[in-house]
Amino acid sequence: MTVRQKVPKGAPRPRKSVLDMAPYSPPTGNRAGALRLDFNENTVGCSPRIIEFLKQQLNPEQLAVYPNYAEVKPALESFFHVEPGQLLLTNGTDEAIQVLINTYIDDGAEVLLQHPSYAMYRFYSEVAGASIQEIDYRGGTLEFPLEELLAAITPSTRAVLIANPNNPTGTAVPLAGVERILKRARKSVVLIDEAYYEFCGITALGLINTYPNLFVSRTFSKIYGMAAMRLGCLFSQAGNVAFLHKAQSPYSVNALAALAAQEAVRDTAYVENYVTEALAARELLCVGLEKMGIEYIPSQANFVLMRIGKRAIEIRDRLREKRVLVRDRSYEIAGCVRVTVGTREQARRFLQELREIW
Amino acid sequence: MTVRQKVPKGAPRPRKSVLDMAPYSPPTGNRAGALRLDFNENTVGCSPRIIEFLKQQLNPEQLAVYPNYAEVKPALESFFHVEPGQLLLTNGTDEAIQVLINTYIDDGAEVLLQHPSYAMYRFYSEVAGASIQEIDYRGGTLEFPLEELLAAITPSTRAVLIANPNNPTGTAVPLAGVERILKRARKSVVLIDEAYYEFCGITALGLINTYPNLFVSRTFSKIYGMAAMRLGCLFSQAGNVAFLHKAQSPYSVNALAALAAQEAVRDTAYVENYVTEALAARELLCVGLEKMGIEYIPSQANFVLMRIGKRAIEIRDRLREKRVLVRDRSYEIAGCVRVTVGTREQARRFLQELREIW
Repeated sequence: MTVRQKVPKGAPRPRKSVLDMAPYSPPTGNRAGALRLDFNENTVGCSPRIIEFLKQQLNPEQLAVYPNYAEVKPALESFFHVEPGQLLLTNGTDEAIQVLINTYIDDGAEVLLQHPSYAMYRFYSEVAGASIQEIDYRGGTLEFPLEELLAAITPSTRAVLIANPNNPTGTAVPLAGVERILKRARKSVVLIDEAYYEFCGITALGLINTYPNLFVSRTFSKIYGMAAMRLGCLFSQAGNVAFLHKAQSPYSVNALAALAAQEAVRDTAYVENYVTEALAARELLCVGLEKMGIEYIPSQANFVLMRIGKRAIEIRDRLREKRVLVRDRSYEIAGCVRVTVGTREQARRFLQELREIW
Repeated sequence: MTVRQKVPKGAPRPRKSVLDMAPYSPPTGNRAGALRLDFNENTVGCSPRIIEFLKQQLNPEQLAVYPNYAEVKPALESFFHVEPGQLLLTNGTDEAIQVLINTYIDDGAEVLLQHPSYAMYRFYSEVAGASIQEIDYRGGTLEFPLEELLAAITPSTRAVLIANPNNPTGTAVPLAGVERILKRARKSVVLIDEAYYEFCGITALGLINTYPNLFVSRTFSKIYGMAAMRLGCLFSQAGNVAFLHKAQSPYSVNALAALAAQEAVRDTAYVENYVTEALAARELLCVGLEKMGIEYIPSQANFVLMRIGKRAIEIRDRLREKRVLVRDRSYEIAGCVRVTVGTREQARRFLQELREIW
């Protein structure tokens, strides 16, 4: 939408930053029963053990009580191998980004992003009234623009927000690159958003004690299959987390998400099996695309960005008619469509439907 | 806590507004099995129909999918008798306050609160860097300071945030008073937070089409017994809601809360019975306090503020030893302790334990 929304007659005027923002409404409707390759979710669902556990635990009194995180916090700190106090629970990664921005970014402060990347970095930076600079992912390969980003960091940079691996490109920056950024941006908070970590294996979590400007986020919305429940984790040195905690509602994470996470991290086999399957499916999918002569960006995540060209939107729409959902990204990178990788069976179905249209 | 938190060595400095904030950590720990008269929750739990419904609906695939509100929104708009587009779902009332502030309040903008009131108004105003003015509730009676508030509204007032009835005083402002505020604060957003509406019966929801500066919030955390799930509703003219929506994460409300709410509003008998019981229990509790010679503020909500005097904290602690939880408010109003009202049986137990200590 490019039409600027009107303020109702006689109503108070929103802040300029909100007036100027583009509305962000991902297409979450009408997905039931379809092959969901559009949101990088777990395509088969969460561990059935989570469902059993929730059913066991659910009772009227428990729902009536405000959330308390005394059990889930140490369980997750231990699972992620961080020290007590280094974890902040958040209402999805979205709240992690928001709390980080609210804690460190004043009106007009300089925030460094990359383009294209996860929409919510820009979103919360805009809400905060930040001054945003975006560095483009590299032309043909969509590689992480490490040198360009390093060159853009100045003493007035207040935040650098990075998805690693990145969505929607699927490309990643190695840990050595992350360290160069952390050293260069000493006066800035640096967020490494590792929503797709399990498919890639690169993590900055082990660097937290070394770099006091480092913040790492993880999510239960992707591989854990808990997008419906909204649970993210933000990690940093305990002294930083104490400040984040101050800027956050004491109850922002719902109690069922906290319960579910406790069971989720006990069923590690489920996640390991899913990674193995998804990586095999990604390989199968890429080979299939090559056979059709469709270019794609080699991915380190559970999705692949395809260079479809001029037919991008048509292909997305015709796949949708066959109840296969993929995500158009051509508004960010000309001709590109993103497809989530789940199981090999799902990848075969996707390839078959695509072949028929192609 | 009055000790200012230290920034870790070499870490980026948080914003001044965050540095200056007092941490807000409500005592949510160690409540299981106790008589919970400390958080104004539903003291018997949510409708059992909600639990049955959730158990029926829960499955691995559903948890893996990002929330979609296409079903719950019209169901709640119809339940609350508002027009399509006049409802914003929020992650508890806390997010309603935050989104309202983020949409309308610039750094330094003037926000008008009352004291004492719900802590999160001040909290999010501080996070936003607002300039906050607080009007005291009236001395002995803790009545709503209507004339004082009207006198404090100026053309530069950008937000007036009001809990009606108020927490922790339990006192309310009549609708005629709300209308005077709405007329006087034409250039300001006016939030009427009706978290305790069902116990009081005063609502500004019917005024939305008349006043373009009016915002009303409701919650499922109190009478509906769903505090664990985090669901609030913010109402205003559709043109305003569209702006709020722009400043909000598209997935901030978890899908189970949305499901639960749909069943909650179908079981209206459960809520009606609870109101009847709680009002009888409030009467019983007040009579009991009078017999003991303990002063209290007549309440229009599901809690009563008692003027315990110098023994406030001692009484709270000794009740806790007996596993009866109440909330000390003496840091806000000298000598005051707040007790939630649930059933008559619970009120009798509370009075008996209090009598023994008293």
